[in-house]
Amino acid sequence: MTNPSLLILPGDGIGPEVMAEVRKIIDWFGARRGITFDVSEDLVGGCAYDKHGTPLHDDTMARAQEVDAVLLGAVGGPKYDSLDFSVKPERGLLRLRKEMDLFSNLRPAQCFDALADFSSLKKDVVAGLDIMIVRELTSGVYFGEPRGIFEEGNERVGINTQRYTESEIDRVARSAFDLAMKRGKKLCSMEKANVMESGILWREVVTEVGKDYPEVELSHMYADAGAMQLTRWPKQFDVIVTDNLFGDLLSDLAAMLTGSLGMLPSASLGAPMDNGRPKALYEPVHGSAPDIAGQGKANPCACILSFAMALRYSFDLGDEATRLEQAVNAVLGDGVRTADLLNEEGITPATTAEMGDAVLAAL
Amino acid sequence: MTNPSLLILPGDGIGPEVMAEVRKIIDWFGARRGITFDVSEDLVGGCAYDKHGTPLHDDTMARAQEVDAVLLGAVGGPKYDSLDFSVKPERGLLRLRKEMDLFSNLRPAQCFDALADFSSLKKDVVAGLDIMIVRELTSGVYFGEPRGIFEEGNERVGINTQRYTESEIDRVARSAFDLAMKRGKKLCSMEKANVMESGILWREVVTEVGKDYPEVELSHMYADAGAMQLTRWPKQFDVIVTDNLFGDLLSDLAAMLTGSLGMLPSASLGAPMDNGRPKALYEPVHGSAPDIAGQGKANPCACILSFAMALRYSFDLGDEATRLEQAVNAVLGDGVRTADLLNEEGITPATTAEMGDAVLAAL
Ligand SMILES: CC(C)[C@H](C(=O)O)[C@@H](O)C(=O)O
Ligand SMILES: CC(C)[C@H](C(=O)O)[C@@H](O)C(=O)O
Repeated sequence: MTNPSLLILPGDGIGPEVMAEVRKIIDWFGARRGITFDVSEDLVGGCAYDKHGTPLHDDTMARAQEVDAVLLGAVGGPKYDSLDFSVKPERGLLRLRKEMDLFSNLRPAQCFDALADFSSLKKDVVAGLDIMIVRELTSGVYFGEPRGIFEEGNERVGINTQRYTESEIDRVARSAFDLAMKRGKKLCSMEKANVMESGILWREVVTEVGKDYPEVELSHMYADAGAMQLTRWPKQFDVIVTDNLFGDLLSDLAAMLTGSLGMLPSASLGAPMDNGRPKALYEPVHGSAPDIAGQGKANPCACILSFAMALRYSFDLGDEATRLEQAVNAVLGDGVRTADLLNEEGITPATTAEMGDAVLAAL
Repeated sequence: MTNPSLLILPGDGIGPEVMAEVRKIIDWFGARRGITFDVSEDLVGGCAYDKHGTPLHDDTMARAQEVDAVLLGAVGGPKYDSLDFSVKPERGLLRLRKEMDLFSNLRPAQCFDALADFSSLKKDVVAGLDIMIVRELTSGVYFGEPRGIFEEGNERVGINTQRYTESEIDRVARSAFDLAMKRGKKLCSMEKANVMESGILWREVVTEVGKDYPEVELSHMYADAGAMQLTRWPKQFDVIVTDNLFGDLLSDLAAMLTGSLGMLPSASLGAPMDNGRPKALYEPVHGSAPDIAGQGKANPCACILSFAMALRYSFDLGDEATRLEQAVNAVLGDGVRTADLLNEEGITPATTAEMGDAVLAAL
């Protein structure tokens, strides 16, 4: 039997630092639990552009299609701001999402007990919060054509196209309903059906899919009202399903509510492969944080927990995933904190490596 | 000399109730301050559809073009959910915005001292908050063509078009810079230039306009990061400028941060008319709240403060606007609260009319 395969793409900014801690965890699983991964590592984003003139080399893309799971750190940084749109670091990530057809992006927004105080929201509003945002990831305004900057009369016009087919909505809705069945059986779908026809179709298809899930309580909300309600009382939600662009904003908002941004993982899942498990890419919700990159300040937990999601969804190692999640929880309980998890002055924060080592010790 | 003219469109849901309180205020200005408005009233939204089969009658549209200012309550309600898209209540409001060419939508997010406790955010995060979101209101995905639901192969596809010309971005950017000059001289522009070409053009044009405002400190943020930063530490912002769709979500989010949703007015301004003042429509940020409509529970303050904005921006009556705003503040200071401003049980809330009368008494 061959080992399960994992492609690691640390990327830019704090990506390499947080990924170094995940490597320690992977090694631990090999040495202590006899679970060995066939790990390869490659470039994505700005660093790939620096080397190859493209944010994702074709060889890397091909490798991503072959492996059981991809683990990505983060992409982007001010150094690349003036690059042409087509070779921006983000295009590397977007190409992975699109060509692997990772249509269902799971973004848990979970408030860690030990960190509830750290949220900008009141403790009772966020303590115990545990919601899941399912964001469509391969269509919508991120990929719709026509797109570009065109001449029109004597000025330029910037155009992007929001575009959803019934089958695109259907499949992401199903993944959200499936998830709701495993959780609190409540699903809220968000769009702007009051002003966008694509939102009308979205609502129609989600409603139709809902008939196959009679046990799930389905509701619909306009995305602006959704942003409000997430801010007012996020615990009213269980699973939220929404499109690529609304999902981008709403999942970041939900992540920030928890006060635990540096703690939040994500999974992007596609259709099942031959082995029955979905094509998958895992990445922390946080970005490349160029302002603190290379200083050992980054919190590796989101990336470590993304690996835990990989254990669960791609490698059928749910127990090991739980073990790892509990280790992270234990470390938080012990009061180990990277700088992002501290709001008082005078306490010396743990470095990225110290946090990783603490998780390792707790394992 | 003719009186300044005002078209009142109470609309649906709680619209008529809150507008009734504004009428009292308008009468007070006539009786006590000798400021008499030429007031007409008409239908918009669902109630216009009920009477005319269209959410905005052509006569109403024509009248709106003639008057010095329009004051609108709210539109929409579940009763109209199944109506065809083209006659939905929202289309009435959107037609007003579009045909009056009200490109600059000012949405203050201000936290009233007496209400800081009511926010879901920690008091120190929101106390004293006073930011202004300038939302482009006549273009973008709200109006771009092509749009609709089309057959494609054997399924349907929902399409909307995000579309911004340089001149559309230029004029709303200027209005935001002008406002920043009168405030804290800080402007943050939000888009998704990392994934949308329309965002690239947006950033370029805003940067270019910024050269005419060397005193204003201009920054750019991706809209998802903007949602996060608004949640984390909103006081970092002074004026924010963004497009129609991002502005819809971000201004609702910002409004909810303050905990004072029932308190927040808005102004939608167009190009200057012959009298030098802009075409204008004023409306509360809150919606039609069908769940509490007709029960005397609604908070009329947002609509009253929208009238105060009209006094300031359309009628050159800044002092009278301040007088009215101070009256509202005084009432809050006295502890008068509609239901939306109470989170404890056991206190009997003020009705809509009681709140209006209290403001009147304070005047
Ligand atoms: C980096 C960027 C392209 C990306 C997005 O907009 O999807 C990010 O914000 C995210 O949410 O994963
Ligand atoms: C009622 C609706 C059409 C409107 C919008 O989406 O613009 C509302 O949400 C707003 O923000 O004024």
